[in-house]
Amino acid sequence: MIVQLERDSATRALAQAVSVLERKSTREILEHVLLEARPGGVEIKATDLKISLTQTLPGETSSPGAVAVPGRKLYEIFRELPPAPVRLELEENRWLHITAARSSFHVPTERADEFPEFPAAPEEYRPFPAASFTRMLEKTLFSASNDETRPTLCGVYLHAHEDPSTGTETLRMVSTDGHRLTIMEQPTPGVLDMFRDGIILPKKGLASLKALVDDSGEGFEIAQSGGRIFCKLANAEMCLTPIDGAFPRYQDVIPSDPRNRVILAKEPFADALRRVALMTDPDTHSVIFEAAENRVVLRSMNAHAGDSREELEARLEGEPQKIAFNASYFIEALRHLDGDEVKVEIDQPLAPCLVRSDEDPGYLCVVMPIRID
Amino acid sequence: MIVQLERDSATRALAQAVSVLERKSTREILEHVLLEARPGGVEIKATDLKISLTQTLPGETSSPGAVAVPGRKLYEIFRELPPAPVRLELEENRWLHITAARSSFHVPTERADEFPEFPAAPEEYRPFPAASFTRMLEKTLFSASNDETRPTLCGVYLHAHEDPSTGTETLRMVSTDGHRLTIMEQPTPGVLDMFRDGIILPKKGLASLKALVDDSGEGFEIAQSGGRIFCKLANAEMCLTPIDGAFPRYQDVIPSDPRNRVILAKEPFADALRRVALMTDPDTHSVIFEAAENRVVLRSMNAHAGDSREELEARLEGEPQKIAFNASYFIEALRHLDGDEVKVEIDQPLAPCLVRSDEDPGYLCVVMPIRID
Repeated sequence: MIVQLERDSATRALAQAVSVLERKSTREILEHVLLEARPGGVEIKATDLKISLTQTLPGETSSPGAVAVPGRKLYEIFRELPPAPVRLELEENRWLHITAARSSFHVPTERADEFPEFPAAPEEYRPFPAASFTRMLEKTLFSASNDETRPTLCGVYLHAHEDPSTGTETLRMVSTDGHRLTIMEQPTPGVLDMFRDGIILPKKGLASLKALVDDSGEGFEIAQSGGRIFCKLANAEMCLTPIDGAFPRYQDVIPSDPRNRVILAKEPFADALRRVALMTDPDTHSVIFEAAENRVVLRSMNAHAGDSREELEARLEGEPQKIAFNASYFIEALRHLDGDEVKVEIDQPLAPCLVRSDEDPGYLCVVMPIRID
Repeated sequence: MIVQLERDSATRALAQAVSVLERKSTREILEHVLLEARPGGVEIKATDLKISLTQTLPGETSSPGAVAVPGRKLYEIFRELPPAPVRLELEENRWLHITAARSSFHVPTERADEFPEFPAAPEEYRPFPAASFTRMLEKTLFSASNDETRPTLCGVYLHAHEDPSTGTETLRMVSTDGHRLTIMEQPTPGVLDMFRDGIILPKKGLASLKALVDDSGEGFEIAQSGGRIFCKLANAEMCLTPIDGAFPRYQDVIPSDPRNRVILAKEPFADALRRVALMTDPDTHSVIFEAAENRVVLRSMNAHAGDSREELEARLEGEPQKIAFNASYFIEALRHLDGDEVKVEIDQPLAPCLVRSDEDPGYLCVVMPIRID
């Protein structure tokens, strides 16, 4: 195998490939990327068995061939190479020789046939608008869990949702770590039927896909086949295996029409939360939120460090409220919410509390309250 | 005690104060800063017993007094306060009440008389030019050791040095961690006699002093008294207790007139070092440097990850050389060296290797070589 690549595009592709790899895999081959040199270019493949990514790069192939190369090391090398064409040659002893200008590297390789097979891509794809996809993920990915003992929470749940009052259908992305939940929905005609049964896609794979979409600046095409989701971009194809299991019946816990609503300016609210967060109890991070006629008072207390109190102008629709919640969940919700004004909706003190904005239609954050002793 | 402060200047002063505190002290009072409110302003004091810092801030004192407050927490609070005057009031129960606009905090305090006494400042100071001080520290601080089992290496050695050939005297700052060494000297008339015996000042204190000097943008005054160094800025005074013990006799190990010299372009050399560093043995980080007539070859090898080779144009004055060294020490030396061209001077393969530039007079980096097996 002998091929010559352009440094910058290859470095970007390797960065994407590495984002798919396991950091420390039990199977060494899964820390490798597969390079397949063909006339006119090279394919770079990476997989953790649940997510597989194929990227196509233009290149001058003088001798076709395929080889598996340690992914992270290859990326580190490309990142530091001088600005010059990069030549890759698989030598007799099966080491890969990498040269650029007067720089030269040898890295050990594994045989291409050790590399896992990728699922066959389907024939038919349907377009998914990039802006809509990126926006939905930005608003939901952060609240998915990292707790691998609860696998169904370690992803984003995508499902077609029909509004019972209007009958209009939207695509919903939902994620929760058990303490807070986010829902983003957008009309996404053309792909809804793929998500009619609901599907949980892994957080890591979606983050990689989002980076690819952001990087290309273009939309992508999507298909479902053999229980997997396939995404096709101009120079990349990704296959995501959904997470097995049922996503929690989240709709059951969200009050459909909360009785009380507090309206606040978002930025001052976020600033005040950051301050009271400084004095919370280190175990609960609990902040008390008290809403009266025309103001909100936030309070926190820590037996050792002291206490804090913030007062904010607010508009109350309903009864005065007193609830407690984890400050950081609220701060993160506000960070992802667009608009100058935010609505905090409370049905009753121990019911999930809704956070949304008229300026951010289709988006809802839900924060579980903490019991006040 | 009741005093009102301007938020931004107080936050900056607290950041400086916190840089002096121990991260985790065995004496709780050393995690505190002392606030002393007097007519017209407040003094903020911080110490780790070896470094003490007093900063003066203007403020409106309605009731004088003094109190010790947890330093890091106070800084965190100030950093998040809204842009408004900040009022501090020591309440009856000895909690400090901090208010700004509609934000309010209480923090526990310790009595001012628990706070360590500061050494009495001398009467007479002499000016030290800021630019010279900052430049000297930038070039030496990084190579001081962090290994607390070798205390004399955890500081910068300042001493007056007389050039034996010209008889001119300069101030030298020297630091070493046992593997590399840096020397920066500048004519600093007026303060040389203070450093005639040589003195080791602690790395942390010098870093704090440098931040104060950089922040003020002005020079400072210096004095020596009772074995300590005192520095006076417009709004701050710092006292540094030297580190006890003898600094290594570094001059003995530096070849005074190395027999061989290799001249290279600095940036390509640094880039190449970063690349070969990727493939070094993880234990030694060893890179082989081979200088011939008109080129330098760098090589590294790692039994698992592979190998690398770089070739650079160079000018050799003397005999061809082959030495090995830790890549990261060389990379750091080049990062601190000014100029486009660098001279690597080698007396013999196991003698310390000198790195300097004609464009950076007064500065010398020394890297200890590694034995080649």
